[in-house]
Amino acid sequence: MTDEREEFAHDPIAHAEARAGMTVGDLADEYGNAGLGASAVHEAVDVTAEMFEEATVFMGLAGAMVPAGMRQLVADLIRDGYVDALVTTGANLTHDTIEAIGGKHHHGRESHPDRSEREHDEQLRDEGVDRIYNVYLPQEHFAAFESHLREEVFPPLEADGTVSIQRLTEELGRANAAVNDRDDVTEAPGIAAAAYEADVPIYCPAIQDSVLGLQSWMYNQTSDFSLDALADMDDLTDMAFEADTAGALVVGGGVPKNYVLQTMLVAPDAYNYAVQLTMDPPQTGGLSGATLDEARSWGKLEKAARNASVYADATITLPLVVAAARERLDD
Amino acid sequence: MTDEREEFAHDPIAHAEARAGMTVGDLADEYGNAGLGASAVHEAVDVTAEMFEEATVFMGLAGAMVPAGMRQLVADLIRDGYVDALVTTGANLTHDTIEAIGGKHHHGRESHPDRSEREHDEQLRDEGVDRIYNVYLPQEHFAAFESHLREEVFPPLEADGTVSIQRLTEELGRANAAVNDRDDVTEAPGIAAAAYEADVPIYCPAIQDSVLGLQSWMYNQTSDFSLDALADMDDLTDMAFEADTAGALVVGGGVPKNYVLQTMLVAPDAYNYAVQLTMDPPQTGGLSGATLDEARSWGKLEKAARNASVYADATITLPLVVAAARERLDD
Amino acid sequence: MTDEREEFAHDPIAHAEARAGMTVGDLADEYGNAGLGASAVHEAVDVTAEMFEEATVFMGLAGAMVPAGMRQLVADLIRDGYVDALVTTGANLTHDTIEAIGGKHHHGRESHPDRSEREHDEQLRDEGVDRIYNVYLPQEHFAAFESHLREEVFPPLEADGTVSIQRLTEELGRANAAVNDRDDVTEAPGIAAAAYEADVPIYCPAIQDSVLGLQSWMYNQTSDFSLDALADMDDLTDMAFEADTAGALVVGGGVPKNYVLQTMLVAPDAYNYAVQLTMDPPQTGGLSGATLDEARSWGKLEKAARNASVYADATITLPLVVAAARERLDD
Amino acid sequence: MTDEREEFAHDPIAHAEARAGMTVGDLADEYGNAGLGASAVHEAVDVTAEMFEEATVFMGLAGAMVPAGMRQLVADLIRDGYVDALVTTGANLTHDTIEAIGGKHHHGRESHPDRSEREHDEQLRDEGVDRIYNVYLPQEHFAAFESHLREEVFPPLEADGTVSIQRLTEELGRANAAVNDRDDVTEAPGIAAAAYEADVPIYCPAIQDSVLGLQSWMYNQTSDFSLDALADMDDLTDMAFEADTAGALVVGGGVPKNYVLQTMLVAPDAYNYAVQLTMDPPQTGGLSGATLDEARSWGKLEKAARNASVYADATITLPLVVAAARERLDD
Repeated sequence: MTDEREEFAHDPIAHAEARAGMTVGDLADEYGNAGLGASAVHEAVDVTAEMFEEATVFMGLAGAMVPAGMRQLVADLIRDGYVDALVTTGANLTHDTIEAIGGKHHHGRESHPDRSEREHDEQLRDEGVDRIYNVYLPQEHFAAFESHLREEVFPPLEADGTVSIQRLTEELGRANAAVNDRDDVTEAPGIAAAAYEADVPIYCPAIQDSVLGLQSWMYNQTSDFSLDALADMDDLTDMAFEADTAGALVVGGGVPKNYVLQTMLVAPDAYNYAVQLTMDPPQTGGLSGATLDEARSWGKLEKAARNASVYADATITLPLVVAAARERLDD
Repeated sequence: MTDEREEFAHDPIAHAEARAGMTVGDLADEYGNAGLGASAVHEAVDVTAEMFEEATVFMGLAGAMVPAGMRQLVADLIRDGYVDALVTTGANLTHDTIEAIGGKHHHGRESHPDRSEREHDEQLRDEGVDRIYNVYLPQEHFAAFESHLREEVFPPLEADGTVSIQRLTEELGRANAAVNDRDDVTEAPGIAAAAYEADVPIYCPAIQDSVLGLQSWMYNQTSDFSLDALADMDDLTDMAFEADTAGALVVGGGVPKNYVLQTMLVAPDAYNYAVQLTMDPPQTGGLSGATLDEARSWGKLEKAARNASVYADATITLPLVVAAARERLDD
Repeated sequence: MTDEREEFAHDPIAHAEARAGMTVGDLADEYGNAGLGASAVHEAVDVTAEMFEEATVFMGLAGAMVPAGMRQLVADLIRDGYVDALVTTGANLTHDTIEAIGGKHHHGRESHPDRSEREHDEQLRDEGVDRIYNVYLPQEHFAAFESHLREEVFPPLEADGTVSIQRLTEELGRANAAVNDRDDVTEAPGIAAAAYEADVPIYCPAIQDSVLGLQSWMYNQTSDFSLDALADMDDLTDMAFEADTAGALVVGGGVPKNYVLQTMLVAPDAYNYAVQLTMDPPQTGGLSGATLDEARSWGKLEKAARNASVYADATITLPLVVAAARERLDD
Repeated sequence: MTDEREEFAHDPIAHAEARAGMTVGDLADEYGNAGLGASAVHEAVDVTAEMFEEATVFMGLAGAMVPAGMRQLVADLIRDGYVDALVTTGANLTHDTIEAIGGKHHHGRESHPDRSEREHDEQLRDEGVDRIYNVYLPQEHFAAFESHLREEVFPPLEADGTVSIQRLTEELGRANAAVNDRDDVTEAPGIAAAAYEADVPIYCPAIQDSVLGLQSWMYNQTSDFSLDALADMDDLTDMAFEADTAGALVVGGGVPKNYVLQTMLVAPDAYNYAVQLTMDPPQTGGLSGATLDEARSWGKLEKAARNASVYADATITLPLVVAAARERLDD
């Protein structure tokens, strides 16, 4: 049954199979046979793989991605040269550093089998445990974090007075990488360290809004150290100017998404590739779920840009898309 | 740093990796290292694999899963003996049959590059194309579907007058399987055919609410053929009574989810395993997103049942969970 | 600053105000000044009011709307002549009848302050309480419901053998209305009774998928009574044929939404008005969240139909839209 | 039928009515009769009214609330003394100022009747129109905004060199209020102006992530003016220390939500009241949808705090909750 209508020029929907032992790249190919959200994952893999090969990549990382276990994956992308600039939250840098100095996040529960959510959280409070959905963090790690900052990170910056936020994240990466030389720490050094070693800048516009920011403020109370909110935009804008081909890999919404996209407002060109992994639907009208077409009206994406949006839990889709894109690049 | 608090008896969150060439089972293991939704996928794989080995499995399949390309995957689960009863929608059976007789769904677009959504849909209407999000179906397939029903499916049932809905789906499966013997059709026979050949009953409580139902009604206008809305509950209840260990694998919400779960209201025991893959959050209060704990208050799940809920697009999670569970069973 | 671009022919966004003592109609007007979801509510009020005046209205009611307290509101719409046919779930009819015979739903909790969700639900199970998100129902009401059905509803139908589902809902409405004459019941008779008295048919395609369906099946085991799954489509189709102007008011998704919309597949015309109140986003590709434009490609809506979709909790938006539409019609 | 079980000590679910001419406060009372999300709105009204009377209120305002028409409502809350500190985004302050100097947002469309979303956005790009879901903004307003900043806002700050972000928002409020004295502007002066006149501080941690931030950076290129990222935390922390009773009114998630909540991490006490209006479900694990119980584990809420979360579109729920709370306070 052939069909001359324009709509049917494509291959028909085939049948997605789910076989024992198939690779993640195979799975992504099966998604390409399917429709709905599955086909969006396939497209996101395709665009991500091409972006990794062709573009200067600006990655946005919002949400509790480090507590959720995405730390190694992001550090590996940086080390392997796939990410050229990272925009993230102070919380992700705080949790990244806590692991770099030997702290751990733990598998927990969003609801306890013997307690209500409220009682559960009250008890965690009493025991000094912070909860992030189903992840626990012992609060004493924040004391170790404070010592690390006050001994290793802030002092070298103090002489310069007010520094850029990127300068702080760079120093944090240097200090986190250095921990690894100590005998008692066997942890992977993580995102900030990888970025320091690979000379990839990390931007963190809302740094005040995190424990890292609170600690910076407390150190500032008794020293000349402070942070300039505007200074980073020189370098970031330069990078956007110099990128012949630019890509945006956006995980979650919020400030990291917007900051990655708005960078192109002051550059002559715009993104040639964009992939977003988000759970917010566009119907709320918030930026976190806004379509990438909407970004075209602002000039943040080139008209001809390739783009894909996956509306599903990013802790599920990020490892899937990255593993499949890496498999494709390996071939 | 050891910790004696109960909360930290588990392994800490490790780092999810995304490596080129890893299998889907490896990916599920990486999810197990992570938190948030990723850990729910890992748990769902675990429960699904155990359920496939240990339980009589009642599968609910709502949503546009056949048009979205999940037809082969579900048929394979049935053929391989993993599913013992299927509850689905008339729409899924309609689309399954259209493919069995040589029709195709096509990759389409939820929004056209040169037209508005409204204009796009008006044009599709003019061209005789039905749209299901980003999947297209040429309307002429419904004419072929009608002929298939009127020539192969309804006549053998007519002599019995009013029959059960399961009797209709069985006849549909027999007729769909028989198509394969024709020279001009090379399509996989699909879900209904697999169920017919494997002697797995398909239940379809809201059959009226589909083109299959509309066709049944039209045939009923000029014949004695009709469908008894209650007759299937004898067999389904018997199966629930006889299952030593019962599992529910629920994809999407709606009638298939509720019908699978309510079956246990008239059985002495309840489900020992339950996995749901849904995008509806519980906060809406609807049954589609309702937690499996809520089902405990009704006695639909055993108190000690293992259960897992994944809140993400089921076209993404179903192939992933099934491939990983199969890989585990293969080991 | 005047602007000649087509985009700015409309009034600009004004400022939504929230004043003490404003009516719900005033609030809807304020939403009309605003953007995003608020403007969709305003549009839904507008279309609903016009539909109530001009059209034969087919209402779809999915979800746990009766347990959630929407029973009186729907009964009032029927009594006041705004709804001409109702498509709903067996669950809503079950809960409607439980209240008609003196049972009550209770304010409960989705999570208990002293127990986990699982423990909470296990305890409710032990105490004979069914939970629907934050609503409780004592299970003994199901015994009273069973008696009511077996004494008042099924016997008059038994002589006719196999009857249509609408015939059962009509008899249910008659029996529920009659309860009110008893001295010990002061409850409002509810939806089925209102529909019986106003001669409005209630359709319930998936009746098996409810306690009402389970009771029907149990009665069927020892009598000639049964239900014909197809018989209702004659009357419903006739009503669609005869409607000069037709409107769809769809609350939630699932079978009620699809059954209301699909009715037009066998009628010469399609809906002139459609309003949907749903929390499912279209991105899942499921029918529950599907846009009303998508329904155009199937010919379920007239090309020129007025339609509005509100993506928000329907227990919030239904009273709001109905009160505002009634206020407008009152002027 | 009386019931001694603890679960049924509450009043039963009554029937929500939707009457012509009822006030928004009446509607909120009807929600209190209902279950699911409707009952959460009722609780939110209750907590908000008590918080407005009893507490020092920290309001978080994320999302495109000013373009969506919520500007007057927020300005009125500030003027009427209900809000003591506001945390918002640079985007909301940018759009607030554009309206203060005579610019307008316009009712637009998220999808055009004669164009695809992509084509639509490309055309808007060509015509110099920025789109925010269904709201349009002519780009030339950004030129007027730039002039306003460079002539009225930045110069008075320049002499002080590096200033706090709150100092900039205060100067912005002063300049916006002063516009009103000009003959050619009849606009309401808006949020920043109201805050300036009522001596309510506005905090904007991620100011770089907005056009206001981009303009600040461009001015910084040729002057001594810059912004200190940490300086605001002194005053905000003092306010938290001094509040006998503290309340958080959180609209949307992101940085404003977290910054409002984290303030209590460095104060001796925590919030006594908290209301959040958000569309993000908790299942994503992101902070935007996180339950307020989770905030208890961090010590951000008092154990005994009253709190309510409404999961629905905030452009719908914010006017509703505020109008009903105001009606209650008026009585």
